[in-house]
Amino acid sequence: MRDIDEFSITQAVIEANRTGNARLVTIMESLVRHLHEVAREVRLTEEEWFQGIRFLTEAGQMCDDKRQEFILLSDTLGLSTLVTALNNRKPQGCTEATVFGPFYVEDSPLVDNGGDIANGAHGTLCFVSGSVHGLDGKPVAGAELAVWQSDDEGLYDVQRPDATDHQARARLRTDTEGGFHFRSILAVPYPIPHDGPVGRMLEALGRHPWRPAHLHFKIEATGYERLITHIFRNEDDYLDSDAVFGVRSTLIADWTAHPPGVAPDGTRMDQPYYTLHHDFVLNPKPAAAPAAAEQGESA
Amino acid sequence: MRDIDEFSITQAVIEANRTGNARLVTIMESLVRHLHEVAREVRLTEEEWFQGIRFLTEAGQMCDDKRQEFILLSDTLGLSTLVTALNNRKPQGCTEATVFGPFYVEDSPLVDNGGDIANGAHGTLCFVSGSVHGLDGKPVAGAELAVWQSDDEGLYDVQRPDATDHQARARLRTDTEGGFHFRSILAVPYPIPHDGPVGRMLEALGRHPWRPAHLHFKIEATGYERLITHIFRNEDDYLDSDAVFGVRSTLIADWTAHPPGVAPDGTRMDQPYYTLHHDFVLNPKPAAAPAAAEQGESA
Repeated sequence: MRDIDEFSITQAVIEANRTGNARLVTIMESLVRHLHEVAREVRLTEEEWFQGIRFLTEAGQMCDDKRQEFILLSDTLGLSTLVTALNNRKPQGCTEATVFGPFYVEDSPLVDNGGDIANGAHGTLCFVSGSVHGLDGKPVAGAELAVWQSDDEGLYDVQRPDATDHQARARLRTDTEGGFHFRSILAVPYPIPHDGPVGRMLEALGRHPWRPAHLHFKIEATGYERLITHIFRNEDDYLDSDAVFGVRSTLIADWTAHPPGVAPDGTRMDQPYYTLHHDFVLNPKPAAAPAAAEQGESA
Repeated sequence: MRDIDEFSITQAVIEANRTGNARLVTIMESLVRHLHEVAREVRLTEEEWFQGIRFLTEAGQMCDDKRQEFILLSDTLGLSTLVTALNNRKPQGCTEATVFGPFYVEDSPLVDNGGDIANGAHGTLCFVSGSVHGLDGKPVAGAELAVWQSDDEGLYDVQRPDATDHQARARLRTDTEGGFHFRSILAVPYPIPHDGPVGRMLEALGRHPWRPAHLHFKIEATGYERLITHIFRNEDDYLDSDAVFGVRSTLIADWTAHPPGVAPDGTRMDQPYYTLHHDFVLNPKPAAAPAAAEQGESA
């Protein structure tokens, strides 16, 4: 391990790593090989290397309990979409998965069907309804849906330093017919947080930080694979240039505009409002291979 | 850019990045291609992806003005040695370069030849001398040497929260004959800081964090390429398993032990002490291509 050069270094590191945890050794071998290949391919200069060190440092220091710059980096480099695709292949007919994003919060409030999840977040009222079924068509009762979205300024509650409560996010359970419905506000397109190193990277690459309007859903039910997905709004300007590469045609829905009148839940509306209806189809967990299914679930 | 899958994602990201700064576009294309290839090769799970996000976040949050966890990561993954090798090819006869490491400090005190750079750092006294010549054999007068090293507990001053002054680091200038000499302490093997995510990574990979004893040198002189290197101590236990892959045979020197007596600078020594002599050879900058030489220097 003396006199290592720009070629022998790769094997030297792989050999050094050889005695660790088998899965980690596999991952690190691939990572080291490809990382080194990047440096050799582009003939990375020492100044560029140091810019990379600084970039990662700033990204780490941008993170706190409400900001996750490395998830933004993974999202904007397409890694999140790639990992989502690798781990969420589903049979034809199931609702497709898409990226998780950095704005999910554990243990948001559990509300009853019909409840208002906006909880004070500003925006045009939107009544959302839908159902959860299995691939066999059976309704899934008691599924837990977590929903989260931005307000009319494109901000999630966690992006508002003054927010003291959960807004525009909640958990609900499907009823005996697999149905759910709630009140919220209209989702709008928004830029991902771009006041940090990832924003500077996008700018230097000539890219915009915008995402098309969407609602996030995480749906969990006993006997089914967990589904993490979005519903996108049809005709959004950014459907073909989502900054995080998350759009799937099957996840685009019509959000219907209505004039003032009587809303689906009987509320008399003085203002225009929207409705959105979407039905989700879950993939059953394979009963024959519980160990493999558990492994899939932990991912 | 809708319905991207685990294969089409790579080209989609590369296309999106296409309008940026040309050099950045080149680097990002290679980086995205290889990063995606890692995820596909190892079939990265979502849990492993999230462990990676957490690892990078913790590494960033470990960094401050005295701790650089991402340089430690680059060092232990061999990237630093690779980038050093790529950017510091020198003709036969020149002193070889090695990794910079995370403990360099700008503007350490300028001391006269013969001065004591330990400045209170604990260790066995060591008298260091040497010379700086060009590849043509001409002495390089007025070269600036920055020297830095650990103390007898294997710690640099920046690793001691109570250190209020520079210790075991200084800058010197070569005399008219290209010579330099100073007093310091004996360098000892030490573990790289391993109380953070990089230390946990090494442990999970079955690797030790030790480096063989060494003195760091950065040598700059008008008309010559900058040299960043170490001098390693012969017969060190870690010469063949340096945690950062930095050892070069030509940089290993004998550090001679002496019984009590008269030291090279005339000091009467009651305790045993060491001497080290090493001559450095710098590569002249090519006169014909000043632009290229400047580019090399900025790296």
